[in-house]
Amino acid sequence: MDSISPILWTGDSLRLLDQRKLPGKEIYVEISEPEEVIRAIADMVVRGAPAIGVTAGFGVALASQTVINKSHEEAVAYMKEFCSLLGKSRPTAVNLITVVDRMLKVIDKLMPYESMSQALIKEADNVQNETLVSDMNMAELGSKLIDIDSTVLTHCNTGPLATSGYGTALGVIRRAWELGRIKHVFATETRPWFQGSRLTMWELKRLGVPATLVVDSAIGHLMNQGYIDCVLVGADRITANGDVANKIGTLNLAIIANSLGIPFFVVAPVTTLDSQLLEGTEIHIEERDPREITELFGESISPPEIDSINFAFDVTPNDYIDAIITDLGIVKKPYINSIKDLNEYG
Amino acid sequence: MDSISPILWTGDSLRLLDQRKLPGKEIYVEISEPEEVIRAIADMVVRGAPAIGVTAGFGVALASQTVINKSHEEAVAYMKEFCSLLGKSRPTAVNLITVVDRMLKVIDKLMPYESMSQALIKEADNVQNETLVSDMNMAELGSKLIDIDSTVLTHCNTGPLATSGYGTALGVIRRAWELGRIKHVFATETRPWFQGSRLTMWELKRLGVPATLVVDSAIGHLMNQGYIDCVLVGADRITANGDVANKIGTLNLAIIANSLGIPFFVVAPVTTLDSQLLEGTEIHIEERDPREITELFGESISPPEIDSINFAFDVTPNDYIDAIITDLGIVKKPYINSIKDLNEYG
Repeated sequence: MDSISPILWTGDSLRLLDQRKLPGKEIYVEISEPEEVIRAIADMVVRGAPAIGVTAGFGVALASQTVINKSHEEAVAYMKEFCSLLGKSRPTAVNLITVVDRMLKVIDKLMPYESMSQALIKEADNVQNETLVSDMNMAELGSKLIDIDSTVLTHCNTGPLATSGYGTALGVIRRAWELGRIKHVFATETRPWFQGSRLTMWELKRLGVPATLVVDSAIGHLMNQGYIDCVLVGADRITANGDVANKIGTLNLAIIANSLGIPFFVVAPVTTLDSQLLEGTEIHIEERDPREITELFGESISPPEIDSINFAFDVTPNDYIDAIITDLGIVKKPYINSIKDLNEYG
Repeated sequence: MDSISPILWTGDSLRLLDQRKLPGKEIYVEISEPEEVIRAIADMVVRGAPAIGVTAGFGVALASQTVINKSHEEAVAYMKEFCSLLGKSRPTAVNLITVVDRMLKVIDKLMPYESMSQALIKEADNVQNETLVSDMNMAELGSKLIDIDSTVLTHCNTGPLATSGYGTALGVIRRAWELGRIKHVFATETRPWFQGSRLTMWELKRLGVPATLVVDSAIGHLMNQGYIDCVLVGADRITANGDVANKIGTLNLAIIANSLGIPFFVVAPVTTLDSQLLEGTEIHIEERDPREITELFGESISPPEIDSINFAFDVTPNDYIDAIITDLGIVKKPYINSIKDLNEYG
C-alpha cells in the first residue's frame, strides 16, 4: 500500500497516476507542459483536495522551468497568469488556492528568478511532505474516536490517492484497522464518478481491510438496520463556522446519521479550513458536465436532450457534524470557537 | 403518452415492452412460453409492483393454454406448480402474490378446465383494467395534495411503465401537471438499475413535463437548498402499520425530507397493502446480483473479487410518511387505524 505514489516529481516532469483508469489499469501520465497540469486537475486525472494541492505545487514548479529564457518581467507575468489559471481549475477545494498562494509567495520573494525554480520545487516538496505528516496526525488522533469492533461507513475516496499521503478519512480507518478497532467498512460507490467503487475499494483491498461496496442509495437502509457504528468522510473546504463542503452525497449521510443518532465525523487537515468564509452558503459549488450523469462509457443512459444537473459537492451544515478531526486536534461544537482556537493556538 | 402499452395480451401471447432496453430502443418481447414470463419478471424486462401483477395475471392465462391436452389432474398440478414458481419470481412486491392468488382462485373454481383459459384471460384483463382505474383515482386524489407551482422530487419509476396504467407517484405528478400545480420535477437516477435516468425521464419527456435528472446523492443538497416542495414515491409493499417497502434509496428521501420539514408522500393502490404483515421488519428485502453494482454494460467498475451488497429495496418506517395516497382514499397517521378503516370501509 505504501508503494502507491499517485503524484511523483521526477526532477523535470510530473508523473500522475491516472485515477480515471483505475482500478482496471494502473497508468501513469507524464506531464512536462504546465498547461497539462491544469487540464489534469480539471479532468480529474488527479482528485481529492490535498492531492490537488500537491499537484498544483509541482505544476507551478514545472511552469517555472519554462521561463528560463524569458526576461524577468515576462517570466513573472507568465508565472502569475499561470497561477491564476491553475487556481481556477477546480472551484470547490480550498487546498488548491492555498497551495497556489504559497507558491506565489515564493515567486514574489525570489529575485533574480534564476533560483526560483529550485525554490518552487522545494516548496512543492514541502507541501507533499506536510500532507503526509498531517495525514499521519489525523490518523493517530481520529483512530481513538473509533470504538473497538466498529463497522464504519465512508463516502467518496479519501485514501492515499486523494492526498498523495496516508489519506484523511481513509487514513483514520486504516490506522483504526491496524489498531484492531475496525471490524468492517462499507463504502458507497459515489456517483457520478464512482470514486468509491473504483478507488476506495481498490485501496481497501490492497490494505486487506474487509469492505463491502453499496450504492449511495443504500446508506439509509444500512444505518437504519444497525449495520453502521459511525460515518467518516473527508472535506474539500471548511468554513469558519464548521460548515463542510465535500463530495455530493455527504449531506445525505450527515442528515441520516444525525437523525438516527450515529456519530458523523469529518477528517481534514487545517489547510482545508477557509477562515475567509464565515459559512457554507458562501462556498462555490462546482457543477460539472451533465454527461457524467447521462452517459456511461460513452453510452447514453437517458433520453436525448433531457435536462440534468451535476453538482459535484454539497455543503453539510455544522449542526450535523459530531467532530472534525484535523492534524492539529479534534474540534467539536461550537465550531466557530473551536476552529478559531485551532487557528490561533494550533 | 397514452399510447405507451408496456404489457399487451395478444390473445395467445404476451407482448412486453423490454424496459431494460429503454430509452435507447423500444423493443417488444413476445412471450408464448409460460416459463419465459417468470424469467421476464426476474430479469426485469418488466418491473414496478403493479405492472408485475398485471404481467403475472397474463402469465397464468398463458400457462393455461399449454394444458389443453393434459388430464384434469395433470393440468391442475401444472398450473399450481407454475403459480408457485411465478409467485417467487420477485420477492418484495406484494402485488405479484396477490394477483397469483386471484388467478389460483379462478383455477380452483373452474371445472371442467376447458373453460379455465378464457376465465383466466378475463381475470388478467380485470387486473389490468382495475390497475388503470385505481391509477386514475390516485392521480385525482393525490394531485389535490400538491400546492400550486410546486417543484417535486421523485425516485425510481412509477409511471405507465411501472403499472401498465397511468402510474402511481408519476400519475399524481402527471395529473398535477395537467392541473397547473407542478412547476418542475426532479428525478433521481435510481442506482443500480437507472430506472430514473432511463424510464422516468423518458416518460416525463413524452409528457412534456419540465424535469431535471440528478444522482441519488444530490437529494440532500436539493432539499436543503430549498429546491423541493414535496417528495412523491411509489411502494412495493405496505404493512398494516404503514411501513413502506420501496426501491432502495426511498428511506434516504424520507429521512431527509422529514428532517428538513418537507412533505413526503407515498402513492400506492390498496393492492399494495399487505395486512398479513404487521410491520416493515417482516418484509423480505430482495438482494439482487452484485454485478448490477460492480459492472456497467459488462465493464467492471471495481477491482476483481470485492464484496458488494445489492439491496433492491428498503423499508421506510411509517413515522417518516406524511400521507399514503391510495385509490380508495388518502390515509394519514396513525396508519394502524387509518389503513384498517380503509380496508374495512374503503
